[in-house]
Amino acid sequence: MKKIINNPNFVVEDMLKGLAAAYPEYLKKIDSADVLVRKDSPIKGKVALVSGGGSGHEPAHAGYVGQGMLHGAVVGSVFTSPTPDEIYEAIKAVDGGEGVLLVVKNYTGDIMNFEMAKEFADMDEIKVETVVVNDDVAVEDSLYTAGRRGIAGTVFVHKIAGAKAENGANLSEVKAVAEKVIANVRSMGMALTSCIVPAAGKANFTLSENEMEIGMGIHGEPGTHKEDIKEADQIVDHLIEKILKDMPVSKKEKVAVMINGLGSTPNMELYIVNKRVSEVLLEKGINVHKTFIGEYMTALEMAGFSISILKLDDELIELLDEPSNTPAFKVIK
Amino acid sequence: MKKIINNPNFVVEDMLKGLAAAYPEYLKKIDSADVLVRKDSPIKGKVALVSGGGSGHEPAHAGYVGQGMLHGAVVGSVFTSPTPDEIYEAIKAVDGGEGVLLVVKNYTGDIMNFEMAKEFADMDEIKVETVVVNDDVAVEDSLYTAGRRGIAGTVFVHKIAGAKAENGANLSEVKAVAEKVIANVRSMGMALTSCIVPAAGKANFTLSENEMEIGMGIHGEPGTHKEDIKEADQIVDHLIEKILKDMPVSKKEKVAVMINGLGSTPNMELYIVNKRVSEVLLEKGINVHKTFIGEYMTALEMAGFSISILKLDDELIELLDEPSNTPAFKVIK
Repeated sequence: MKKIINNPNFVVEDMLKGLAAAYPEYLKKIDSADVLVRKDSPIKGKVALVSGGGSGHEPAHAGYVGQGMLHGAVVGSVFTSPTPDEIYEAIKAVDGGEGVLLVVKNYTGDIMNFEMAKEFADMDEIKVETVVVNDDVAVEDSLYTAGRRGIAGTVFVHKIAGAKAENGANLSEVKAVAEKVIANVRSMGMALTSCIVPAAGKANFTLSENEMEIGMGIHGEPGTHKEDIKEADQIVDHLIEKILKDMPVSKKEKVAVMINGLGSTPNMELYIVNKRVSEVLLEKGINVHKTFIGEYMTALEMAGFSISILKLDDELIELLDEPSNTPAFKVIK
Repeated sequence: MKKIINNPNFVVEDMLKGLAAAYPEYLKKIDSADVLVRKDSPIKGKVALVSGGGSGHEPAHAGYVGQGMLHGAVVGSVFTSPTPDEIYEAIKAVDGGEGVLLVVKNYTGDIMNFEMAKEFADMDEIKVETVVVNDDVAVEDSLYTAGRRGIAGTVFVHKIAGAKAENGANLSEVKAVAEKVIANVRSMGMALTSCIVPAAGKANFTLSENEMEIGMGIHGEPGTHKEDIKEADQIVDHLIEKILKDMPVSKKEKVAVMINGLGSTPNMELYIVNKRVSEVLLEKGINVHKTFIGEYMTALEMAGFSISILKLDDELIELLDEPSNTPAFKVIK
């Protein structure tokens, strides 16, 4: 296992210390739990957003804590849902009186634990609403999921619902726009290699030297099939076809595109992927409003990428373009 | 070779298309060469900055083209210096009448070709000055270098000299502050794995399953030695010791820190590295003004990281904190 870590059992603890030390201008760790919140939490008079899940997907979600995005990120063990207690601590730490929106990726463990945390908060009379992101069109049901999985499209939910909250909308308005994003975003990925959970010390599956997996999940869950590696253009064509089959986009419609590296894909390759993505969308007459390329929702050191396409209307464009200032996602107006 | 590419001979061409398609709000490709320049080039009345080198280090340098950093990036073949002609095209495309500063990493090929481009520009009576970045303390002389290599510290030169140019300083002032950064920045890295140049199709060296290389260069040039992988804290302690031995930093002095992933190091591990970096600097009484964690100067899919430390005075702090708006480096004031 080639990893730059100390004791494998303390990767989350070490990581949180490193994050808190790096970004004091954005976030602080709360004492009672593996939770990072905006340094100015709680912000009175505004709805707060909390997201989280297992760790191993960095910069998700702590990298999105800051102005115009998340107010708190709950960090579970690697690929393991945070506990209800920890999510509840995050809710309490960020609630400024206007309620809290939980943004949950659709994994069974996360759904259960965020739901239980919401019940704790209900007893405290903190208003809590939940949205569940399920943007991955690859497969219905999976190793840890009933229904479709939530992957990189989640970052668009953070950005747009975060902007709505920053602008002073109430909880039902923030929830409504989050649901609009979820209804309009689809993603699909592929992988060239597996990844190694530090405490396990070995890859959770293998791919042979000339093999890739299409539709792979961000924890190494199986996708649709394995096949020989193809050229980037062919891979992209297949993923885009699957995405647009699930969510048709008409000529002249506007979209945002995210080319997300899964952990060890060189930026050069992500740019090459975008060459073909931009060509295909141009051929179809679809207007790309904005493109994001980088590591947004990773799977430890997995090699591979996902494409996310978000259909935009005027409201979503305005909120996507609002300023955000977080460690890993900055939009300058 | 597991890579997401098309024809290995066209990786640079494909990448440039993907970059230009992704970031039209920042940059444009010029027709005559593998050069990306600010979309509003040339900017009259301001000094322009040009950097570049072999590709394979993305987001360097095209990702730093934009407001407050570079005006042009020249993109060579993978790990190969761009030609003098191409550098000259970049100079001509960005010169706004106040001259051009070339920021060159210290590799023999780059030095020669940027120098020749400068001679072409001299004949056109375009004012050109050059600075050479040599921040890597690992080794004197190397596979492609006489003297110390230039690595991730180069990004601090782009940021600070770019801010100076944006503020309207003249060419000698911009050059002077670039040289101040170079005098005050030191870096050192390590690697767990090699990387594969696409056209070669195989790794240019190997490390065994339990081995790391200390002081590795960003093209896989040898470092100081190979040894068994140690814990992150021990690796960091060694790198920081080497850096601070070369450039002593006194108690109460302020620094900026960059933890740079070389291509396939998970963000989780970079945060864990920063845990120890921040602890060591705190123990020494050194004040960290700002920390940057991410992929800034990569070596294709190499696993590993470098640490850069930049000693700051009031001028450097002010310029580092000035706004910048580029695809890969945004500072919000």
